[in-house]
Amino acid sequence: MSQYHCPDNQTVQKLRDIANKLRIHSIRATDAGKSGHPTSCCSAAEIMSVLFFHTMKYTVSEPKHPNNDRFVLSKGHAAPVLYAAWAEAGLFPESELLKLRKIDSDLEGHPTPRLNFVDVATGSLGQGLSCAAGMAYTGKFFDKVDYRVFCLIGDGESAEGSIWEAMAFASHYQLDNLVAIFDVNRLGQSEPTALQHDIDVYKARAEAFGWNTYVLDGHNVEELAKALWTATQVKGKPTCIVAKTFKGQGIPGIADEDNWHGKPLGAKSEASIKAIQENIANAGPHGIVPTQPTLNLKPINTAVQLAAAPAYKLGENVSTRLAYGTGLVKIGKFNNRVVAMDGDTKNSTFAQKFKDAFPDRFIECFIAEQNLVGVAIGCGTRDRTIPFVSTFACFLTRAFDQIRMGAISQTNVNFAGSHCGVSIGEDGPSQMALEDLAMFRSVPGSTVFYPSDAVSTERAVELAANTKGICFIRTSRPNVPVIYSNEEPFAVGKAKIVRQSDTDVVTVVASCVTLFEAIKAADTLAASGVNIRIIDPFTLKPIDSTTIIASAQKTGGKIITVEDHYAEGGIGSAVSCAVSEHPNITVKRLFVPEIPRSGPSSELLNKYGISASCIVKAVQSILSA
Amino acid sequence: MSQYHCPDNQTVQKLRDIANKLRIHSIRATDAGKSGHPTSCCSAAEIMSVLFFHTMKYTVSEPKHPNNDRFVLSKGHAAPVLYAAWAEAGLFPESELLKLRKIDSDLEGHPTPRLNFVDVATGSLGQGLSCAAGMAYTGKFFDKVDYRVFCLIGDGESAEGSIWEAMAFASHYQLDNLVAIFDVNRLGQSEPTALQHDIDVYKARAEAFGWNTYVLDGHNVEELAKALWTATQVKGKPTCIVAKTFKGQGIPGIADEDNWHGKPLGAKSEASIKAIQENIANAGPHGIVPTQPTLNLKPINTAVQLAAAPAYKLGENVSTRLAYGTGLVKIGKFNNRVVAMDGDTKNSTFAQKFKDAFPDRFIECFIAEQNLVGVAIGCGTRDRTIPFVSTFACFLTRAFDQIRMGAISQTNVNFAGSHCGVSIGEDGPSQMALEDLAMFRSVPGSTVFYPSDAVSTERAVELAANTKGICFIRTSRPNVPVIYSNEEPFAVGKAKIVRQSDTDVVTVVASCVTLFEAIKAADTLAASGVNIRIIDPFTLKPIDSTTIIASAQKTGGKIITVEDHYAEGGIGSAVSCAVSEHPNITVKRLFVPEIPRSGPSSELLNKYGISASCIVKAVQSILSA
Repeated sequence: MSQYHCPDNQTVQKLRDIANKLRIHSIRATDAGKSGHPTSCCSAAEIMSVLFFHTMKYTVSEPKHPNNDRFVLSKGHAAPVLYAAWAEAGLFPESELLKLRKIDSDLEGHPTPRLNFVDVATGSLGQGLSCAAGMAYTGKFFDKVDYRVFCLIGDGESAEGSIWEAMAFASHYQLDNLVAIFDVNRLGQSEPTALQHDIDVYKARAEAFGWNTYVLDGHNVEELAKALWTATQVKGKPTCIVAKTFKGQGIPGIADEDNWHGKPLGAKSEASIKAIQENIANAGPHGIVPTQPTLNLKPINTAVQLAAAPAYKLGENVSTRLAYGTGLVKIGKFNNRVVAMDGDTKNSTFAQKFKDAFPDRFIECFIAEQNLVGVAIGCGTRDRTIPFVSTFACFLTRAFDQIRMGAISQTNVNFAGSHCGVSIGEDGPSQMALEDLAMFRSVPGSTVFYPSDAVSTERAVELAANTKGICFIRTSRPNVPVIYSNEEPFAVGKAKIVRQSDTDVVTVVASCVTLFEAIKAADTLAASGVNIRIIDPFTLKPIDSTTIIASAQKTGGKIITVEDHYAEGGIGSAVSCAVSEHPNITVKRLFVPEIPRSGPSSELLNKYGISASCIVKAVQSILSA
Repeated sequence: MSQYHCPDNQTVQKLRDIANKLRIHSIRATDAGKSGHPTSCCSAAEIMSVLFFHTMKYTVSEPKHPNNDRFVLSKGHAAPVLYAAWAEAGLFPESELLKLRKIDSDLEGHPTPRLNFVDVATGSLGQGLSCAAGMAYTGKFFDKVDYRVFCLIGDGESAEGSIWEAMAFASHYQLDNLVAIFDVNRLGQSEPTALQHDIDVYKARAEAFGWNTYVLDGHNVEELAKALWTATQVKGKPTCIVAKTFKGQGIPGIADEDNWHGKPLGAKSEASIKAIQENIANAGPHGIVPTQPTLNLKPINTAVQLAAAPAYKLGENVSTRLAYGTGLVKIGKFNNRVVAMDGDTKNSTFAQKFKDAFPDRFIECFIAEQNLVGVAIGCGTRDRTIPFVSTFACFLTRAFDQIRMGAISQTNVNFAGSHCGVSIGEDGPSQMALEDLAMFRSVPGSTVFYPSDAVSTERAVELAANTKGICFIRTSRPNVPVIYSNEEPFAVGKAKIVRQSDTDVVTVVASCVTLFEAIKAADTLAASGVNIRIIDPFTLKPIDSTTIIASAQKTGGKIITVEDHYAEGGIGSAVSCAVSEHPNITVKRLFVPEIPRSGPSSELLNKYGISASCIVKAVQSILSA
């Protein structure tokens, strides 16, 4: 075992001085921005100082170098102290700090990857540790190098269950390159935290969740430096540092006092800064240059395609969830940085196929969807992997906040949600995704695939892997016929017209299960001489307005949408909005109008008004109007 | 201290027999339904037997009597064993069990309150304990009687962070009337759980989270009976029972084996049933009648109104979030069963005002939004309280799955989400709700209020309290002028025309911050002789299609929507869908088109295209088209 060398007295003093400089920067920046959280910065000042100027190995000039140690500020409202640390490290001038929260500055109220030293956006609390765990997993198992990942967590946010999902995950996978630091400053936003300074409870919880745990004085740089080093000697367990701190530490009359959350010091600033300055031995440049890691990692190859074209027979019955698994294996064959994760549903989502093919690139995240998504976002940072997350689509609602923050994090994570709609049958409404399209469509910059058959599903997987931003692929449980040839090309935002004639009276827009109901309806109607046009939109965001509008114009301006989804936010909404500026186009929407019940798939489609016979009736009703 | 009396040998045998009968019922029902989870039922058979036929006090004929002990099956996929328990208790004939999962039976795949013995729907895992904690809180602090609440949790779902949020909550509030039973059967859906049978880890975690904890053999009825009684003697702490069990217990060749999750036994049923029957001493009626509680609780008075009318001056500047707090206090004065809960944002949402007025009816849930929502749903069961949940609207996305399940649970919980949109300013995108309308509109049966001023906000609070289903009130951070008189009546689904003339050229639909931008735009346009009509929809679901369509028809069919929300699922979507079947009406939508950044509120409104000047341009562009 290596021997710990205490930093010399001069270094210790420098670390203390830097901590106090970070305090002053935080106070000045929040004053300049007229808002922000200086007291939340002050509790973390020594932690940040020791991490950035003693422990972490990184290249200041290249903050996103893949070999750098990672830092995640889970308590994102302490952004000013993070910005101050990078300014002190020399990445940008101190004067920039005074632009905090200005509309033309990337130094936003909470960190986002608009800044080159931020991997994931934080500010919705309790999410950082999952992302950090994903980074640590990537370092240990995919990159296989020795970068470490540090995550600073507020005590208030440790009430979030997502923290404990991540705690369980990190110990299960023995992420000994991960360090979580709990900044236990006792005070929340509106009152003291539930545990206040009950440090022993934090220790017991962290240990029960399988972490090597140290309790220390979070304002003592020597204790911090030692614990952060000692953690490197512990194999097979992540390390948790429970740091007892004080909110507003260093500021007379404000430290450890109520009612100072999220408030600049204003009139109290100058006196506060003066008091802090008195503790600084050397106000000049600290001269510390962070240790560089060995720079041996290269950018990964992000080119992805299906290793083999789809290979189905027309008319063959294959569920789109099964085709998802098949497609995922094919892109995994082509690019060894494709990784997949699931929440104990892999035998239903068919992510199992990927695990079988590439066991080393599959992460079982168990039944903890928030952490599942956070881990994927972490794995995808710095473009080290191309992550695919799967579970039942309805359970992705569990992670809406993580998905929302993922968009702000500029993540490229791909999601596959299976078991959408009433077509799953007997399991009942708790297992049916009927609001997933509304959710994923609302995510800024997202791409929403709703493929109708196996061929298009494989292409959706390929396209998602190549599309920036959050992608969602909605898959279905029942088997459906293959309707596209294996050579059919697909593109984001390009619909397919699957049935048309010169005498079509209405355009029906539908996907997968309801597309096949529409085709059945078309057959029935054709028998009585009525022809309808049928469009498979393929992506609902972006939606192919051009094709839909052109088609509607050829069918008397009449559109019917049919979806295995609630009324709001799905196909009907997407189409209504796509044509909203075009007069003379009307949209009649068929959707699941209420909470469904258990029953056979076909009976449910009928009961809730989205079966072939319901489509026939809707067409007839429009014609007779 | 009371003395524990072991059940006599005859009772013990009866409890064992009942457990085995529950197994047989579960096997037969899932066979009849051709789907379901018999092995997940078998691990819990003794737990259910002891709870329902020894421990719990309840009136079989009146399952929802407020004095009854409560039971929450968090592992909802074990529904058949719950149904079997009630059949064995005599609520309905055994023969009903064979209708499991049929479209005409309320015995759905997972429990829902369509059944009179189910308080909350389960099936999305990890949610039951928060609801149970809400029920226990209600029993202890609001009803102030001695009913107990039991929650059966699967080991797989104990990976959900929401479980640990609830664990922390229940110990913090010393809910000694709450018992959580972990059914540790080792096997998940697709592989063994992370902890398998590592019972000591469960114990350490439960204890670290502050629970009185027992470890026992979950198939031993004597141990279960004793622990469930002993829990009554422990004051100030909830009790956790870690029950070591085997999935499929009692079924030779299937118990504790992989690959039997969610599968009826089919061809193996008869032999399995025979093997179980051999362990039954008395196949006849068990004759146990559950102990009745004292029936002294009455239904609460659910009548609610503002105790005093709004009292503002026209033009006075008041934020809608502040008016929310004011309105909440007023209905709280009128009805002492109005309760409120918040996630450490009460000084921002103004739930603080309710806490100040009624400290005994406010529950601080700390930063754990999933549990916050689950607790509220639990508090609202059996109509014992009228709950109002508040936090930043963006953080309600954290609980989308709980909200989704809340709708299936037929809850009447009311939500207030503050700090919507870019108008919050400098805190940046992580704190801005820009998808909350999409989320809440997608919830079946929901009512979505987006009040524009203080008067209408107070009325929204009053209406929400009186409206069944999930209600959402979107509130804003900035001060806005009062535009309605204190006597103005408001109704769900009724819009207000806030400006009109005989020469209006376009109808603008906007709410709160953007409504006031529209009014400014109207003033600017009026100066150049252009008049516009302005509609405040008040509720976006249901939306007042009649007023909007009538208005559009008087303004040349032209509508512009303006919203502090992303493109999908908000005002623009609601209006586009409302008019979609009407030809000759067009909708131009103004919305926040990308992830915003930090900055002053007014600059952000302008940058993202929803300010007065943007509305002026949009009107001019439509006129010149």
